[in-house]
Amino acid sequence: MRIITLITDFGHSDAYVGIMKGVILSIAPHVVIVDLCHQVPPQDVRVGAFTLYQSVPFFPPDAVHVVVVDPGVGSERRALAVRTDHGMFVAPDNGVLGFVLAATGVQEAVSLTNPDYRLPAASNTFHGRDVFAPAAAHLVNDVPMAQMGSPAANRVALSVPQPEIISSQRMIGHVIHIDHFGNLVLDVTADHLGGQATFELVGHIVDRLSRTFADAEPGELIAYVGSTFHHVEIAIMNGNSAQALGVDVGTPVLIRREIV
Amino acid sequence: MRIITLITDFGHSDAYVGIMKGVILSIAPHVVIVDLCHQVPPQDVRVGAFTLYQSVPFFPPDAVHVVVVDPGVGSERRALAVRTDHGMFVAPDNGVLGFVLAATGVQEAVSLTNPDYRLPAASNTFHGRDVFAPAAAHLVNDVPMAQMGSPAANRVALSVPQPEIISSQRMIGHVIHIDHFGNLVLDVTADHLGGQATFELVGHIVDRLSRTFADAEPGELIAYVGSTFHHVEIAIMNGNSAQALGVDVGTPVLIRREIV
Amino acid sequence: MRIITLITDFGHSDAYVGIMKGVILSIAPHVVIVDLCHQVPPQDVRVGAFTLYQSVPFFPPDAVHVVVVDPGVGSERRALAVRTDHGMFVAPDNGVLGFVLAATGVQEAVSLTNPDYRLPAASNTFHGRDVFAPAAAHLVNDVPMAQMGSPAANRVALSVPQPEIISSQRMIGHVIHIDHFGNLVLDVTADHLGGQATFELVGHIVDRLSRTFADAEPGELIAYVGSTFHHVEIAIMNGNSAQALGVDVGTPVLIRREIV
Repeated sequence: MRIITLITDFGHSDAYVGIMKGVILSIAPHVVIVDLCHQVPPQDVRVGAFTLYQSVPFFPPDAVHVVVVDPGVGSERRALAVRTDHGMFVAPDNGVLGFVLAATGVQEAVSLTNPDYRLPAASNTFHGRDVFAPAAAHLVNDVPMAQMGSPAANRVALSVPQPEIISSQRMIGHVIHIDHFGNLVLDVTADHLGGQATFELVGHIVDRLSRTFADAEPGELIAYVGSTFHHVEIAIMNGNSAQALGVDVGTPVLIRREIV
Repeated sequence: MRIITLITDFGHSDAYVGIMKGVILSIAPHVVIVDLCHQVPPQDVRVGAFTLYQSVPFFPPDAVHVVVVDPGVGSERRALAVRTDHGMFVAPDNGVLGFVLAATGVQEAVSLTNPDYRLPAASNTFHGRDVFAPAAAHLVNDVPMAQMGSPAANRVALSVPQPEIISSQRMIGHVIHIDHFGNLVLDVTADHLGGQATFELVGHIVDRLSRTFADAEPGELIAYVGSTFHHVEIAIMNGNSAQALGVDVGTPVLIRREIV
Repeated sequence: MRIITLITDFGHSDAYVGIMKGVILSIAPHVVIVDLCHQVPPQDVRVGAFTLYQSVPFFPPDAVHVVVVDPGVGSERRALAVRTDHGMFVAPDNGVLGFVLAATGVQEAVSLTNPDYRLPAASNTFHGRDVFAPAAAHLVNDVPMAQMGSPAANRVALSVPQPEIISSQRMIGHVIHIDHFGNLVLDVTADHLGGQATFELVGHIVDRLSRTFADAEPGELIAYVGSTFHHVEIAIMNGNSAQALGVDVGTPVLIRREIV
């Protein structure tokens, strides 16, 4: 069983995602399709990139991951297929593969220009259906990537967010993602900290790194190393910290490392 | 692999859709189930009909499409199964198949009255689970449609929206659908226009038909031929035109065709 | 084909559910995964329990049902696998299996302590991915439950809501669930009533039990025996009764049985 995963900004109020699945299953009837997320904020390439980055490690390396967050649909931006050790990727060339490709070597990358592997009479407005879905289905059918287009070098990159190091004890991190529970994911990892630390954001102080939610009381603000690649997260035990603190993506967090 | 698609107004906050899948898979364990949309506004038959209409062409002709938007559940309205060249359909007889059946010939239609193909002790309130899901599963198991009920003539129709033609140069179209991005789908197709045109709605003028979103600047209002059966759409490049213009389904659009 | 169902409070704006599916399919590639509900209100064990309870009867008895509504993740609360005549269950030991287990005998129950059946380096914050998803996948692969941990007696129970019986003619029921349509599910069943009755809630009176929605006029308030285990429901024909009446879970309903 081969897997195709889908990330889009199409939401759930239209049939756009289901239509992509009809196209995929018409070409590759035995594939298993997994929805990763369809509520990426419209045209938000960075959220799409982050969602992909946290998901890929949990899928087999022969999976094909499709990301359609595509503000440039119909423009000259390229449609890509990329092969890596950790899976194949099909997406617009706008940086949405940036976080994933920064962490792995690229074995092959093509611009999906061969009309034989698009739907006939592809539209200018729905490449998810007409370009990306058929490409993914043909890849699980083992069509050689090189047949589907021409080599694609110099792909659009996406800067991976990094904390600003101020001194050996102080750095400024940033909220890079807010999840459904209102938990805040920082651009700071356990490696950046190297041990205990305190965290200050929008006037609130968290005075240590906890092992888990369960070390806190309900309503208490805590910091812990999260389940996504050891990024630090800040949360309110059984509450929504983003709403309670009025925090958004980009909010800075002053971090003081414990002097060892 | 046979496919069953689902369109409902059940939303995602209950297990109703998942329960229908349990019923389907208990009868037809090898079917692939595709969600098309479950956020049809409650009891909105017209949106259900449009969602089905734009999805069917992208599925194999042996797929079974189930639509449960059913304000009359428990009343005398019939439950239908319909066979066409483009797929089979299972739905209440309330017009929700109207757009699809207006575009294709009906080979066979039955009223699903045979209790052998319903769940035992079918409820009066959840025909999605007790009538439509089992019917679809039995159809993919190749139960002859004629065994499942009696012939159903004189089905409820749904008027297909059409622009009003005022003169050879002028017509009034209408917004018939607003998608997740706030893009406006009109009842006007490329065939109606026959070439270039201008569009006027709620005091705004779009002075030409563009080829794609990418012909516009961010924030600019554009018209283009969309990906659903060549209907004209109006959108704000990387914005939500329905919200920005305060437009709703039914809003008229004055169209002036270019004199050739 | 074996089935795994999923109920979580993860919502649809993150890839958490999709990541669990990646873990499951990596271990059990041929399983069919069915989403029951991912919009359980965050940490609301009772809603998770109710959702499971209404879904289980419509799945084959060899299905594995996973519920991740887990306010105590990372604490000492146990992670359970339970075998019954109606299916297997994988969930935290916090009562979320309470309604289901109150209705069936438990054949076997273990605490999922064996690290061989977790992901390597399981996190303290995402047991859905690291503990529950792999356990469910190993169960469909027919790993003996006893290998996955130690016997788990004295599981956390959940009181099943019951109406208060005041006299042979009068009882006070409660709203225990509000669905996507705003329909109110009561803790009162057809068996409690034993015949006709009147219902009074927030100053409104429903003067009889109807057979179905279709016995009412649009806008009329009706009571009927619903499709979930014969619980009584109150609804507004083609409207949202919870919003119209300002009713919430827990609202009492005074019921007068007809004297026979």
